Amino acid sequence: MTESQLPVVQMRPYRWGDPTRTVELPAVAEAALGYLGAHAPERAPVEPDDATLPDSCLTSGVREELEAAVGAGNMTSDRLARVAHTRGWSTPDLLKLRSGDASDAPDAVVSPGSHDDVLRVLEICTRHRVAVVPFSGGTSVVGGLAPVRDAFDAVIALDLRRMDALTSIDTESHTATLQAGMRGTRAEQLLGGHGFTLGHFPQSYEGASIGGYAATRAAGQASAGYGRFDEMVVGLVLATPRGTITLGTAQKSAAGPDLRELVMGSEGTLGVITEVTVRLHAVPELRVYDGWRFDSFEQGAAALRTLMQDGPVPTVVRLSDETETAVNLSDPAGSSGSGSGGCLAIAGYEGATDEVASRRVAASAVLAAAGGEALGTAPGEAWRAGRFLAPYLRDSLLDRGGFVDTLETATFWSNLAHLRAEVTTALTAVLTELGTPPVVMCHISHVYETGASLYFTVLCAQGDDPIAHWHEAKLAANAAIRAAGATITHHHGVGTDHRDTYALEIGPLAIEVLRAVKNTLDPAGILNPGILIG
Amino acid sequence: MTESQLPVVQMRPYRWGDPTRTVELPAVAEAALGYLGAHAPERAPVEPDDATLPDSCLTSGVREELEAAVGAGNMTSDRLARVAHTRGWSTPDLLKLRSGDASDAPDAVVSPGSHDDVLRVLEICTRHRVAVVPFSGGTSVVGGLAPVRDAFDAVIALDLRRMDALTSIDTESHTATLQAGMRGTRAEQLLGGHGFTLGHFPQSYEGASIGGYAATRAAGQASAGYGRFDEMVVGLVLATPRGTITLGTAQKSAAGPDLRELVMGSEGTLGVITEVTVRLHAVPELRVYDGWRFDSFEQGAAALRTLMQDGPVPTVVRLSDETETAVNLSDPAGSSGSGSGGCLAIAGYEGATDEVASRRVAASAVLAAAGGEALGTAPGEAWRAGRFLAPYLRDSLLDRGGFVDTLETATFWSNLAHLRAEVTTALTAVLTELGTPPVVMCHISHVYETGASLYFTVLCAQGDDPIAHWHEAKLAANAAIRAAGATITHHHGVGTDHRDTYALEIGPLAIEVLRAVKNTLDPAGILNPGILIG
Repeated sequence: MTESQLPVVQMRPYRWGDPTRTVELPAVAEAALGYLGAHAPERAPVEPDDATLPDSCLTSGVREELEAAVGAGNMTSDRLARVAHTRGWSTPDLLKLRSGDASDAPDAVVSPGSHDDVLRVLEICTRHRVAVVPFSGGTSVVGGLAPVRDAFDAVIALDLRRMDALTSIDTESHTATLQAGMRGTRAEQLLGGHGFTLGHFPQSYEGASIGGYAATRAAGQASAGYGRFDEMVVGLVLATPRGTITLGTAQKSAAGPDLRELVMGSEGTLGVITEVTVRLHAVPELRVYDGWRFDSFEQGAAALRTLMQDGPVPTVVRLSDETETAVNLSDPAGSSGSGSGGCLAIAGYEGATDEVASRRVAASAVLAAAGGEALGTAPGEAWRAGRFLAPYLRDSLLDRGGFVDTLETATFWSNLAHLRAEVTTALTAVLTELGTPPVVMCHISHVYETGASLYFTVLCAQGDDPIAHWHEAKLAANAAIRAAGATITHHHGVGTDHRDTYALEIGPLAIEVLRAVKNTLDPAGILNPGILIG
Repeated sequence: MTESQLPVVQMRPYRWGDPTRTVELPAVAEAALGYLGAHAPERAPVEPDDATLPDSCLTSGVREELEAAVGAGNMTSDRLARVAHTRGWSTPDLLKLRSGDASDAPDAVVSPGSHDDVLRVLEICTRHRVAVVPFSGGTSVVGGLAPVRDAFDAVIALDLRRMDALTSIDTESHTATLQAGMRGTRAEQLLGGHGFTLGHFPQSYEGASIGGYAATRAAGQASAGYGRFDEMVVGLVLATPRGTITLGTAQKSAAGPDLRELVMGSEGTLGVITEVTVRLHAVPELRVYDGWRFDSFEQGAAALRTLMQDGPVPTVVRLSDETETAVNLSDPAGSSGSGSGGCLAIAGYEGATDEVASRRVAASAVLAAAGGEALGTAPGEAWRAGRFLAPYLRDSLLDRGGFVDTLETATFWSNLAHLRAEVTTALTAVLTELGTPPVVMCHISHVYETGASLYFTVLCAQGDDPIAHWHEAKLAANAAIRAAGATITHHHGVGTDHRDTYALEIGPLAIEVLRAVKNTLDPAGILNPGILIG
């Protein structure tokens, strides 16, 4: 099944993805759970129908205005719909819903069908002091969908999924304009019909949306070849309580600051992205993914660095550390030779057949010269086949009393080893102290000329209070990242979870700048209050 | 002479570059001047010593405070220094100085030696309502150095050229931190000593500075291979009247909006960039530049588009239209075969020897398949040898009564032919109507997956009032660019010349956003008043 053939699934509260799909825990994960002392929870998860949530506090007057704005049938205060729009997909978010806690549910779900619908909703909500949470995929793992509602009379989820049209395509310029609520999977289906791909395949691919990608600066697994999502965006339309901003008269311009880059990463706090114009690539004739073994993470990182600085650049570049290589959840059959120790790297190539062939030969020579041992295509293809499985595996682990969550950061190459050591130490120390010693795995998933991202996966027993434990571990990791001078997030976003560290990262004057922008576009502060800048 | 061996020259008021260098007008230019009816001006240019400028109106109290801030000897109200900091290098700027009009001269030139010096100067100027014009290369061609001083008691030029240190270099991460006043030529000399290059070679290379590159989003002639300057910047430090903002914890991040992209392009209106951290490339082992002939501009543009969309991408990509190819000021010897009609393209390759060889073979096959006729390396090397000559040639043309100026824009590929036709028609109609019919030449100088820039060179007789004529022509070109939906500037910047069109391009709400940011960082509005956002 290629990426463009994945089904467009309806996400379910607290369980990921396609309901018809069951993912069994691999033996290595079973063994790890035993080793870590995880016990299956005594109670089964509370079904969404039985979750506890407050009554909707939207007044009938506001309700009528909103319904008039988006049309009858496009707004609901139905209980299950509200539960399904409660928080995002971080592990604490899932654990709360599993325990039946839907206390952060919005008071209603409003589904606009057009940019003008969005403008009308924002006007009404500004007038009535109703907070607005833009929502499409609902896949935030950083608290990006759980606003601070204190100062507001009510909260609505603005569900953009009706807005999922391919508005236009320019096959000469290789651009397409997509509405913000379109799923990534649907975008690939529609663009594929014209011979194009975005090349954007984040782990959240089965759930996330075009507008969310832009609002959070997503990065897909093939970012080395196709770029990050923010690099794909050449134009966008933003609906704000003060009106519309339309940006993007050329791919690159010297006409002042690049305001597309101010909107991207704003996480719904400055306005609602309703439309995005993206750069397209021809659907590749060929995809080949190779596995490579390095003796150590440092050796592998040096090899990747050489590729990024001197070329040629593969389409996909990844490197797992020793621990992740040994566990290798995505390849339980062990085709990566993970039994032999060392670190597994993936180098994937996509494009025209001849070009892929020559690039692969040249990159392979660089990797071999840097100490890599060629493992053939089996590990690469195993990774490719399993790369969207992790969210399903997490559900299975949670079912068995395991706790797993991830965090990520990025820095310059010369700081990478230090950053990895500091974050690993911080996570291990805190969780061990709390009685749930973890396995901390790490990989490089995104690479640049000057540096790379680090992605950490933490696995431990749930213990007495997994949400509290993880909160402490996360604070320690945030502090370690900040102390190392790295960024608090390479591609997950800021949300509420990273907000305080983000403020330290850019400093108080830059935060004042963002507040000034927000006050200009959203004077009542209704958009995602408490997200990004508090 | 390679780029890193160019002398670090002291720019002279109204004449470009190295004073020891004389550039004779090629015969084709002589012929064109005759054809266009240009007559040598009756009066020689007024020497800078004899220019007319108002007395400095800086009070002695402010003068003493500023001198204390930057140290004795680092501030002057010397007449010639003030003339040398009057306006920039657009043709109208030069014509005004040639006529002896230095009425826009700053009241003093202040030369800080450090970031803290800059902060002190901004604090003093805020308190005393003194406008501040950040100045390094002084090469703006869009009125970026001629602020609107109405509301201020005085204006100073903040000359950053003392701040020209290589602060640090990270050879593992391929980054270097450079002070903002460093010339591009000096950066290449210093980085070349470590085996690195920026790969940034704009036509203003002999004059412009690192801080100016960042503040105006410069693009060098090798942008296809090395990227635009804004793509090279991974970190920067901004001094504002409200304090310091330091940005750049990783090459790419999802931590909120990319505020580096808000500072870049702000043209000194939000703060003074004092330090920039840039991405480096290894000095190429080999540089090869090929010439190609296409039957028409459309055919050549389609070939370039194919290269950018499907690869492989040359390091330098250019295409002159039929008129520019015929005139070809940079190749008066005619080695480009310009006598044969059609359009000259340049495809240049830089990098490791083997990599250059294979990329050149593959790109050449694409260009040939698209209808290109290979002309060998002579036209490419002729272009490379002459590519920094244009500013010298302009001085010679002005001496002879010719008028020449340039403007540029960018759009998506599907709009390129329309844009070129509309701008050419607008310029030709207005200048012909005014009695100075022009030759309008055009080339593509920067290419992307989704579009390209267009660079227009206009040559005509000076006529009675060349400044007024050009003003009208420029307004017509601006209107044509806006009507075509293109950007008002691909790499020259906004300044004062493009300000009104820029406001239309991004719209009133986006302008409000920029004003809010400015009010936050520069509450007294002292920084470059009237530039960018008025």
